[in-house]
Amino acid sequence: MRKLASLFLMLGLIVSASLPKAVVAAPEPSLDHIIQTAPASDWRTLDPDDLLFMRLGPGVVVIELAPAFAPNHVANIKRLARAGFYNGLFIVRAQDNYVVQWGDADAKRPTGGGRMRLKAEFDHVYRASEAFTPLPDPDTYAPSVGFTGDFPAARDPSRGLAWLTHCYGMVGAGRDVDADSGGGPELYAVTGQAPRQLDRNVTLVGRVIQGIDILSGMPRGHGDLGFYQSPAERTPILSIRVGSDVPASLRGAFQVLKTDSPSFQRIIDNRRFRKDDWYKTAAGRIDICNIAPPVRSAQ
Amino acid sequence: MRKLASLFLMLGLIVSASLPKAVVAAPEPSLDHIIQTAPASDWRTLDPDDLLFMRLGPGVVVIELAPAFAPNHVANIKRLARAGFYNGLFIVRAQDNYVVQWGDADAKRPTGGGRMRLKAEFDHVYRASEAFTPLPDPDTYAPSVGFTGDFPAARDPSRGLAWLTHCYGMVGAGRDVDADSGGGPELYAVTGQAPRQLDRNVTLVGRVIQGIDILSGMPRGHGDLGFYQSPAERTPILSIRVGSDVPASLRGAFQVLKTDSPSFQRIIDNRRFRKDDWYKTAAGRIDICNIAPPVRSAQ
Repeated sequence: MRKLASLFLMLGLIVSASLPKAVVAAPEPSLDHIIQTAPASDWRTLDPDDLLFMRLGPGVVVIELAPAFAPNHVANIKRLARAGFYNGLFIVRAQDNYVVQWGDADAKRPTGGGRMRLKAEFDHVYRASEAFTPLPDPDTYAPSVGFTGDFPAARDPSRGLAWLTHCYGMVGAGRDVDADSGGGPELYAVTGQAPRQLDRNVTLVGRVIQGIDILSGMPRGHGDLGFYQSPAERTPILSIRVGSDVPASLRGAFQVLKTDSPSFQRIIDNRRFRKDDWYKTAAGRIDICNIAPPVRSAQ
Repeated sequence: MRKLASLFLMLGLIVSASLPKAVVAAPEPSLDHIIQTAPASDWRTLDPDDLLFMRLGPGVVVIELAPAFAPNHVANIKRLARAGFYNGLFIVRAQDNYVVQWGDADAKRPTGGGRMRLKAEFDHVYRASEAFTPLPDPDTYAPSVGFTGDFPAARDPSRGLAWLTHCYGMVGAGRDVDADSGGGPELYAVTGQAPRQLDRNVTLVGRVIQGIDILSGMPRGHGDLGFYQSPAERTPILSIRVGSDVPASLRGAFQVLKTDSPSFQRIIDNRRFRKDDWYKTAAGRIDICNIAPPVRSAQ
């Protein structure tokens, strides 16, 4: 039986068409209808080896890793997780309208062969065969934006470069001034207006597919940059585990709507034109950070 | 003596240049330096008659109203506030990455001559003399974006129209399906990725200049569209008062950096190019919702 709770959770920003009380029958297929009627072939089941499960007191945050963009960081983070590196560390920072951050780049702990610093993976030269579903509208920050797999991405065709974009819920590897000082012991999730100026300045390693509201609802830190001022304010990380190490009965089976599917094209059109009774002026445009591929957890 | 706490609060997203631990001496003037050295003439003191003070258990939220864009809504909201309409109502909705909403469009309460519904004020034909400081970069949603006073705004020169944009912290008048069913008894603040598809679909009435973190940190509602499911989850509104009705000793004196000042031009340049040691790739671009005019409270 399908549990759709997580689907609606992820779709927070795109399900909620109207601000007001009334929900109106749409003359055009609604977003819900598109998702509910998408054929099985338009969905992809995520490999649990590409997932991280972060268990906190308030609930579980699930992150889909992006090995296609940050292969070394992803492999490193999995090593650290499997060594128990993160267990017992803390959420250390919650800066309003920006990021929530966890882990510790200075921790003296077993790393299981994982490293504390890695060469940056800010962008890469894309192959002609690399999937990319472009969005049709202009972007403030990049020549072209769209989706590679489930991830929001940007491209500069003149230089053949691709990179992930800092949208809400994206997860990155915190670093110091040195570009190559990140690696994964310290991670953050975007919890506010997309800080796109960070694109190509930090290695993005994945996106939160469940539980972003747990992170975004954390009490704000009042130190510089939103760091907590006292240890008591920090939320402990009970554990971070690779999905394939979590018992199948606990990890569910996450599916995402393929971004190169006909159903996702219908969603793009739906989000650009909002053909329902509530909207009086259709933007006819959509920002890369205002549309997210639907996620569901089937069990 | 100046209390700069609120300044840094509002600047959450623009003060925080770097994600990591180290803060580096910038070779170019830092954002802080620009703000600290801005001459008195670059600041404007806000008229307390254009402010709303919403007192909640966790603190006070201050909203700057936008009579230049929504004169009838602003006058109406002030009437409602002066009649005590909002006092004892509740925060009724907190939808992750979207909005927090309060008030009650169906309340049977004294309105002091205020109305429960008003004709929409989605946009207006701008006069040649109307202030507008454009940003230089392309916007996904509008032909031109920039600032009018302290407010993020968009323009369509081909039609001579101006409107406010749904950036983080902007406040609007919730409405039903009828475009003219808003008016102010129900209000919301944007607490997530800018939902620009709402531009010109809801009347924006102002922006939060203090305490947005109180709203954005509210526990999320788990009903449809983030409405709270039980009355116990709602945060009571102790009072909403017009600033000029609040004793001067309690209301401080808010100042904003003028967006048509040389100092603000320096901030635009600083935010586009991030000339410090941490950034490796300058975006050279800035989104209208990633830059906010600095606010300070002098007392």
